[in-house]
Amino acid sequence: MHCFNVELGERSYPIVIGSKLLADSQYLLPYLRGRQICVVTNETVAPLYLSRLLDGLSDFDKVDVVELPDGEAFKTLDTVNRIFDALLEQRHNRTTTLIALGGGVVGDMCGFAAACYQRGVDFIQVPTTLLAQVDSSVGGKTGVNHPLGKNMIGAFYQPRLVLADMDTLTTLPDREFSAGIAEVIKYGLICDAPFFHWIETNIDALLSRDPKALAYAVDRCCRDKAEVVASDEREAGRRAILNFGHTFGHAIETVQGYGRWLHGEAVAAGMVMALELSHLLGDVDGELVQRVRQLLQKAQLPQQSPADMSVDDFLQAMQLDKKVLDGKLRLVLLRSLGDAKVVDDTPQEKVIDALRNCGAR
Amino acid sequence: MHCFNVELGERSYPIVIGSKLLADSQYLLPYLRGRQICVVTNETVAPLYLSRLLDGLSDFDKVDVVELPDGEAFKTLDTVNRIFDALLEQRHNRTTTLIALGGGVVGDMCGFAAACYQRGVDFIQVPTTLLAQVDSSVGGKTGVNHPLGKNMIGAFYQPRLVLADMDTLTTLPDREFSAGIAEVIKYGLICDAPFFHWIETNIDALLSRDPKALAYAVDRCCRDKAEVVASDEREAGRRAILNFGHTFGHAIETVQGYGRWLHGEAVAAGMVMALELSHLLGDVDGELVQRVRQLLQKAQLPQQSPADMSVDDFLQAMQLDKKVLDGKLRLVLLRSLGDAKVVDDTPQEKVIDALRNCGAR
Repeated sequence: MHCFNVELGERSYPIVIGSKLLADSQYLLPYLRGRQICVVTNETVAPLYLSRLLDGLSDFDKVDVVELPDGEAFKTLDTVNRIFDALLEQRHNRTTTLIALGGGVVGDMCGFAAACYQRGVDFIQVPTTLLAQVDSSVGGKTGVNHPLGKNMIGAFYQPRLVLADMDTLTTLPDREFSAGIAEVIKYGLICDAPFFHWIETNIDALLSRDPKALAYAVDRCCRDKAEVVASDEREAGRRAILNFGHTFGHAIETVQGYGRWLHGEAVAAGMVMALELSHLLGDVDGELVQRVRQLLQKAQLPQQSPADMSVDDFLQAMQLDKKVLDGKLRLVLLRSLGDAKVVDDTPQEKVIDALRNCGAR
Repeated sequence: MHCFNVELGERSYPIVIGSKLLADSQYLLPYLRGRQICVVTNETVAPLYLSRLLDGLSDFDKVDVVELPDGEAFKTLDTVNRIFDALLEQRHNRTTTLIALGGGVVGDMCGFAAACYQRGVDFIQVPTTLLAQVDSSVGGKTGVNHPLGKNMIGAFYQPRLVLADMDTLTTLPDREFSAGIAEVIKYGLICDAPFFHWIETNIDALLSRDPKALAYAVDRCCRDKAEVVASDEREAGRRAILNFGHTFGHAIETVQGYGRWLHGEAVAAGMVMALELSHLLGDVDGELVQRVRQLLQKAQLPQQSPADMSVDDFLQAMQLDKKVLDGKLRLVLLRSLGDAKVVDDTPQEKVIDALRNCGAR
């Protein structure tokens, strides 16, 4: 079992990573301050893991469950409102704790509901997908999509605990598992060159879901992310490097419609675009771009724009990205392997070239 | 002109109170950090004061206006979503500033939208009602109602500036003006006995809207509130005294349907209920209750339950109040004039007696 703290002063919290954590309530109990609990999950995860979690919580006064539809397409204000409805109908008060049992979509919505319910109640992340375990459950970004942009409505709101049970990855569909691998590769690229080498060496063990390799990778990603978040909780500067590949990726998700591409798939293609651009700007050599393409290929992740997206589609969608400030497109690029930077003044023609190199029409 | 700071560390901000402030952009400009502005107002206030505000902002790249319907009945998540729609359609980014021009409903929704838009952008309160100037614009409580409870969805989110222009009170309808007087009286009761005496002496000047008396009262209320908020920003303890009369009042608003009683009217009746209860518990004498009733009468504010509300209606609605913790009804009562306390263990039969003394069936 791995365990360490995200250091955020009075908002610090532990991340616990290991096996058989879900069924053992000793990990949760110290972080449940009241007598009320509401588990937020979805229709896919509930049949697999809900009873395992609930078994340990039978001593509480009130344990309710909100089961949401599955998928990014449902990450909306309307769906969050269903959580509010349930909490109020069941008379949950300020001492309640919300537990997010599911992937990134469940975690983002449950966290946002916790941030807003009665102006803030406790919540705990129990991520059940690789992507949520290595990325979205850590760092306190919560929120929902708007038809005009991804994650446009939300809050910075930290959980009290993140509990990542490796056993939940055994039932993850291949496509979703691969989507998580994209974010794993991201950490190596932006801030951890030794980890990137480890991934290259261990990609087969990861893809065969070897529990030891997985626990090591999740731990390493969470530590990398925790370090970045601790230095810049509300993304005034450095934290933006975590969005490597995401500006391009969000454009894909927005234009394709939420849910057609998985978030991790869009990020995979977006990382290749950001790498191609970094290469065009003379920062990284073509060999690194090829190595990343090879890793993505092994993981069956896309390295190209969707066939029906044009350069203009990208440029327009990216203008709405949260990272755009006063008209300037802000991109995360690589200076070298393991060293990302935020750039405001990328010449648009280079962006266009990079997009074309990745198959945008 | 009065000016002082709400002291909240890095979230500190000034409150400026005076006349002719709206038309003079020097007060706003230092607090506008970006090149984009979105004014959120309503259909009643816009024709009166919007152009006065906009005249000073012509140098900005983008000044948009969102005009909401007027009234507590529209303080919903759906209405806040209209603000998000406008911000995204007009491509506002993280550097935008939202300006709330209106009463408490506009301020609560605009503040909540600012808290959530792109996970938090700047906002400024320009309250145009007495109630908003003395109470809701100060302290960072933002949010919306849910059919099952008032202010159940929201955030603690501080403005960058509060600008209270006394001139806007000249057009305030009598009923809304009186509703504000209820909150003015509240500050005297809960934490400022000398101010209560001042109100008793100056109630006629206040009700005739003498600008000097009004500016004095608004300043005094804001200072009282700022002191309480600075000691307990997120309402872990002392801040709850600001809810004097509000648990009963919220029950009235919830059962009657939002908007039939103005918030200040419900608080007026709620304060009498809390005073009657404090009296029944032996803390304050009957004479104080009578003095408060007289003040409310002069201001044409209600001192009774709505005729169609039963004791059970109250008890049921109050069980859903945010101040209820683990089944215990938490009430704000008076120890004596100017000295409020939060009580968890009020005997229910006393609550019932107090409600009956105020006309609940």
